[in-house]
Amino acid sequence: MLDIISQHGCFGGVQAFYRHDSTEIGLPMQFSVYHPPQEEHEAVPVLFYLAGLTCTEETFMIKGGAQRWASQHGIMLVAPDTSPRNTGIEGIDRDWDFGHGAGFYLDATQAPYAERFRMESYLVRELRELVLNQFNTDARRVGIFGHSMGGHGALTLALRHPEVFSSVSAFAPIAAPSRCPWGEKAFGHYLGADRAAWVEHDASELMKRAKTPYPQGILIDQGLNDKFLQEQLLPQEFEHACQQAQQPLTLRRHEGYDHGYYFISTFMEDHLAFHHRVLNGQPAGF
Amino acid sequence: MLDIISQHGCFGGVQAFYRHDSTEIGLPMQFSVYHPPQEEHEAVPVLFYLAGLTCTEETFMIKGGAQRWASQHGIMLVAPDTSPRNTGIEGIDRDWDFGHGAGFYLDATQAPYAERFRMESYLVRELRELVLNQFNTDARRVGIFGHSMGGHGALTLALRHPEVFSSVSAFAPIAAPSRCPWGEKAFGHYLGADRAAWVEHDASELMKRAKTPYPQGILIDQGLNDKFLQEQLLPQEFEHACQQAQQPLTLRRHEGYDHGYYFISTFMEDHLAFHHRVLNGQPAGF
Repeated sequence: MLDIISQHGCFGGVQAFYRHDSTEIGLPMQFSVYHPPQEEHEAVPVLFYLAGLTCTEETFMIKGGAQRWASQHGIMLVAPDTSPRNTGIEGIDRDWDFGHGAGFYLDATQAPYAERFRMESYLVRELRELVLNQFNTDARRVGIFGHSMGGHGALTLALRHPEVFSSVSAFAPIAAPSRCPWGEKAFGHYLGADRAAWVEHDASELMKRAKTPYPQGILIDQGLNDKFLQEQLLPQEFEHACQQAQQPLTLRRHEGYDHGYYFISTFMEDHLAFHHRVLNGQPAGF
Repeated sequence: MLDIISQHGCFGGVQAFYRHDSTEIGLPMQFSVYHPPQEEHEAVPVLFYLAGLTCTEETFMIKGGAQRWASQHGIMLVAPDTSPRNTGIEGIDRDWDFGHGAGFYLDATQAPYAERFRMESYLVRELRELVLNQFNTDARRVGIFGHSMGGHGALTLALRHPEVFSSVSAFAPIAAPSRCPWGEKAFGHYLGADRAAWVEHDASELMKRAKTPYPQGILIDQGLNDKFLQEQLLPQEFEHACQQAQQPLTLRRHEGYDHGYYFISTFMEDHLAFHHRVLNGQPAGF
């Protein structure tokens, strides 16, 4: 059952917000969909967007400015929430960088998180299948991108499920979470103290072992005024791993841009064009 | 003195937030400016945006998606707050449609509002002069637009000060506030019971007496799924007044669009192009 929370006309299509009972998570989950006008008469590609710490399924749709380009290219946009909500776990709302609003797009293995914090299975299996079944979409053309924690999510889910995702990009991703405070905190709680489990959810570590999974390239934009760049994001680690794996990567570093949506919205047009081209078998153009 | 609250790279320019001590209002006021890249080497036109009930100086910059087009056309965007803040007037935060966040862009004449609620003088005199003096701007090319209460503000300020503003447009404006509940409540409190004072701040009434003040036309977009359309907005009143005054008006009614920023952002490109053309003496194109 899919409940419609609201629907809004937007760039010739419909901006919708939905709620459903997630079987993976065992709680209601909300997500947002931008339905492009092309969906009325053809199966459209789907592009998942994963947001960063503290965000919800609304953030991207309000601040990203992506609908214009999704309407132009005929791409459906889907944005999940950033974690389960109302889990009732003691202290889970205490920190802004862990717990509610900070699910890190993985399946937790440690109590008390393992029961509810199953964002990877929720996204890759449940939400993806729901979107493909409920809407007029093309399962062979599914891409993923995201920002910060959601950039980590996009890169790791793309590397862990290359049979599911055909294009991937990121804005200012947490690119080597095993080696930064945000990642160490989240992985320590969700995955436990054994760092061997962490490398399975670290984009730079996954890439080292990958075999050119995205031959058309990966696009990453990073602002150089981003206050999290040096301590938390570490894009150079992912860059080195891509070189090692012979994975084509376009990592653009932008003077004067910070970590927020004024940066993201500036380069949104490029990301939508990139996914449009890759999902339709055209040269990536970067 | 102008304090910088924050600055963010955005579409090749800078999204800035400022605070200053307003002499008109007698309290600190915040406003936002999008500085287009062209400002570095030429005096740019200025476009004021007035937001609706409950909004702040941030709303438009976060949700409107205007910066891309302002960057393209070389237009500075300026958005004030929607009222004085922290006035200390008893009960002034009680209602969402009156008081703080609901200044209606006029100078109140009634106690206890008259001392602080001076948004018209603040905008047309103080803030405009500040922007023209502090930044690399062209005083002969100043336009104004807005949404809902801010659409009312844009239309009335343009009609009351045609020597100041050279272009005007609106999204879903409160077009005849003397005849709708929002306007009656605000005007009753700010201007008093005598309705003769109200017509001086009612766009439809002002237009009836005007002499084609904007010969290149006025642009208004209105969604037909807007839940406030019938009771609060009354664009047909303004339409009739324009016919009476032989004022060219493009009033576009859009099926499927509501009162929110998913509607506004859809048509933002058109409004920026409209102001760009009118402010530069080109045909309005609508």
